[in-house]
Amino acid sequence: MELPHGDCYSAACPAREVLGHVTGRWGGLVLGALTRGTRRYSELRARIEGISEKMLAQTLRDLERDGLVLRRQYPTVPPRVDYTLTPGGMEVAQRVESLIGWLQDHVDELVAAQQMHESYAAARVQMKHDSA
Amino acid sequence: MELPHGDCYSAACPAREVLGHVTGRWGGLVLGALTRGTRRYSELRARIEGISEKMLAQTLRDLERDGLVLRRQYPTVPPRVDYTLTPGGMEVAQRVESLIGWLQDHVDELVAAQQMHESYAAARVQMKHDSA
Repeated sequence: MELPHGDCYSAACPAREVLGHVTGRWGGLVLGALTRGTRRYSELRARIEGISEKMLAQTLRDLERDGLVLRRQYPTVPPRVDYTLTPGGMEVAQRVESLIGWLQDHVDELVAAQQMHESYAAARVQMKHDSA
Repeated sequence: MELPHGDCYSAACPAREVLGHVTGRWGGLVLGALTRGTRRYSELRARIEGISEKMLAQTLRDLERDGLVLRRQYPTVPPRVDYTLTPGGMEVAQRVESLIGWLQDHVDELVAAQQMHESYAAARVQMKHDSA
């Protein structure tokens, strides 16, 4: 390795690519959904409202390639596929869950901040209009 | 509020929108860069390799609207603008930093997993080719 350790602030570091996978539009929710144990593809799809087949498949492929999720296929008819966090994946997922948990616990504050911001923006527009 | 608390797994919950802002392509890196204190726009731009003017401005606007980042403009010539985490923003940023730190510390494992995955994929292609 050229780097002594990873640096997500550096565009070329592989850690930045993985940061994209574990957060991104869906990565965090997939990891979070797996913290409670092994899940089938269809269970993940049902848990994460609004995720498409294509995006779920792509997200799982990226996480599997990073060594964070283990995909197992069983030779049944029809074939059954499930997904489990690896030990490293569990460590990442717990950090993501802590972030998700904070946002969920503070959703009222977040919405209040957004509404206040919009009121100020509207007031600024009105002031400009009045002074014109 | 209709929801007792937020639910990032629900498409309509405002917490999911904010999860996108604090992770996303750049949100986590901007929050992480602010954990060490107030930064000017140009300092953030220099710290986060590869971020464009447009994406940095958009990311900061979203985080400001969510009440996680405070923007201050000073009436100097030329005008000076800087950014600071709010108390809530600091709590979110510390969680993001914990995630970034883990990935940076384990970058060798992540790269090894990616390489192993590619070797297996190549071997599978070769086996298919040999048996054809």
